[in-house]
Amino acid sequence: MSLAGLRLAILGSISWPTPPPGYGPWEQIAYNIAEGMHARGLDVTLFATGNSHTHAKLAATVPVGLNEDPALNDEVSTSLHIASLFERAGNFDLIHNNFDWKPLTYALATTAPPMLTTIHGFSSPPILGAYYRCAQRSFFCSISDADRDPGLAYLGTAYNGIDPEEFTFVDQPGDYLVFLGRWHPEKGAHLAIEIAKRSGVRLKMAAIPQDERYYKEAIAPHIDGDQIQDIGPVQREARDELLRGALALVHMTTRPERFGLTLIEAMACGTPVLGANMGSVPEIIIDGITGFACNDVAEAVARVPHLAALDRRACRERVEREFTIERMIDRYLAAYELALEHKLPPPPTAEESRWRKHDWWDRPMAFTDIPERARSLPT
Amino acid sequence: MSLAGLRLAILGSISWPTPPPGYGPWEQIAYNIAEGMHARGLDVTLFATGNSHTHAKLAATVPVGLNEDPALNDEVSTSLHIASLFERAGNFDLIHNNFDWKPLTYALATTAPPMLTTIHGFSSPPILGAYYRCAQRSFFCSISDADRDPGLAYLGTAYNGIDPEEFTFVDQPGDYLVFLGRWHPEKGAHLAIEIAKRSGVRLKMAAIPQDERYYKEAIAPHIDGDQIQDIGPVQREARDELLRGALALVHMTTRPERFGLTLIEAMACGTPVLGANMGSVPEIIIDGITGFACNDVAEAVARVPHLAALDRRACRERVEREFTIERMIDRYLAAYELALEHKLPPPPTAEESRWRKHDWWDRPMAFTDIPERARSLPT
Repeated sequence: MSLAGLRLAILGSISWPTPPPGYGPWEQIAYNIAEGMHARGLDVTLFATGNSHTHAKLAATVPVGLNEDPALNDEVSTSLHIASLFERAGNFDLIHNNFDWKPLTYALATTAPPMLTTIHGFSSPPILGAYYRCAQRSFFCSISDADRDPGLAYLGTAYNGIDPEEFTFVDQPGDYLVFLGRWHPEKGAHLAIEIAKRSGVRLKMAAIPQDERYYKEAIAPHIDGDQIQDIGPVQREARDELLRGALALVHMTTRPERFGLTLIEAMACGTPVLGANMGSVPEIIIDGITGFACNDVAEAVARVPHLAALDRRACRERVEREFTIERMIDRYLAAYELALEHKLPPPPTAEESRWRKHDWWDRPMAFTDIPERARSLPT
Repeated sequence: MSLAGLRLAILGSISWPTPPPGYGPWEQIAYNIAEGMHARGLDVTLFATGNSHTHAKLAATVPVGLNEDPALNDEVSTSLHIASLFERAGNFDLIHNNFDWKPLTYALATTAPPMLTTIHGFSSPPILGAYYRCAQRSFFCSISDADRDPGLAYLGTAYNGIDPEEFTFVDQPGDYLVFLGRWHPEKGAHLAIEIAKRSGVRLKMAAIPQDERYYKEAIAPHIDGDQIQDIGPVQREARDELLRGALALVHMTTRPERFGLTLIEAMACGTPVLGANMGSVPEIIIDGITGFACNDVAEAVARVPHLAALDRRACRERVEREFTIERMIDRYLAAYELALEHKLPPPPTAEESRWRKHDWWDRPMAFTDIPERARSLPT
């Protein structure tokens, strides 16, 4: 079945332009989906900021990313951005929502067209209630098998995909570890520092600000500009250079990762991953082949001497096989076909209903199953 | 034309139950409208918190007021509350929105049924952009002639209405001034203190917390428990007692008042108003008859000795004539008829369009036309 000509609305996030010049995983994936679907002949309209770029049609309400102009009111901008799609919903055959739960509440006002929501992450427990309340109106895709809520039905998992050609493969291991992300405890920058120090290996860290106190207390005191380097946020080319030259990406998150775009970006460069053994990590990497899934800091430290022996080509090949835009598009097209066929999701199963009454903290993708040892800050 | 049987959805605010036990003017008015329309034979469904009470049908998504349970997520609760109405929009002949701008963004997804929005106040400049963007979808009513944005068209002004029987009329003047509201500079509690001190008259203040720093710096140092009393927030009966026993209500706001429910509550008790001469005040009171509209603190101080001579019956009669629920319902029924007749508002006039490009601060109901002298804090 070909979906060529299908009028597809893709709703993206507006924290950054699409694609984002630097950090912005949700915008990056919305961009990749829009470009990929456009290339497959679908009639794609991407709802994003006005300074976004796409080969599809661009529909913009907000001129620039919310993080680019402090004068923009988040609540007003977000509401109008979402509403601008639903105002025109009748012009589309399918809506692919990549902007979390709030668009679902707008979708309740209309039953057409069918809607698919990629759940890029449950940003906080109360949001789950919104997903449950609106589950009758949208199909769902997860971005890893691990990041599924047992109270929701999923059409499938569509792993995030990148264009490996945007990343430079290097077949020789570098001599430093790298940390990429946000300054937030859940991203485990403090654990990366601990691992680097205990291994005696250099660590280069590139992150955008988020939790200022965390940075000040747990990160800044360790920055020496030599063994532990804070090189500031990096954009495309600098990120590629940083990743391809590394011995490994350290990704010791303190809560289960939902997907982890940096994992596949590193692997596309041939750089293996030293990751926490929870969430999506064991799905994304192949333990012992494209990196190591570690249960704690001590295990990670023990793995460091073995990183250089990993076959960097295997890392690249894993991305080319499983995590390209083409593979992601294939997975989404399959989900689109199901959504178009069924139009609206079935009512929740007894098991799903049972979970919906359950406490958030029991859920596998919640914040609870973090090993206590991984939570400790370096001293 | 009778609207008996009309299926009317009233969307209220959910900060408090409807009606609110204490502070909560938006909820109070939504309640009064629902009760009044129900009494006129309309088929009314009130969307409010689960612990609300109405003779109409109650539709609730959120169990209690957002201010009553800190565990409730404001954004999720608000979105689901609004969405629950639009999910059922097809079951109604008319939507009367009393919950600010956000429901307008949901209304864009559907053109039916007609919608009327009471603008209870522009809570911040960016919100105006949302009103403009969605003005094609809703008719508007103002709550005073003064509180109109020149970029919007209005079907009319529907002054807020109360049931005078809920307030006890007292024909003899009391010996203290009263302040009722929120601890926020714009409500002018600091000016009430200054007026009381300079007049040598007692002041009883009852307010809910809002701006903590303001309270600490501008209010608390003046509380002596005797001349300047902070008696804490008051609920229905205590409010009635406080108002009916007063010499006057001091309402020296530092930004134009939009309507000022406490003005008519005080007058219903026979208590005149010492108010700032801007915004709705000159419309609500009759200067020299039911109170004084003062241009600054000095003028207010000069008026204090004349308050006892005002005819308290004139205050009560003004409310009975203009500000009852019945009068409000009449005004809204007229607006409903227009909305039902025209279904959707006309496009903006050239003059409205011109204003929509204009700076917020030029607007009469913005924060600019506050006399500088009224801004000064007491020392």
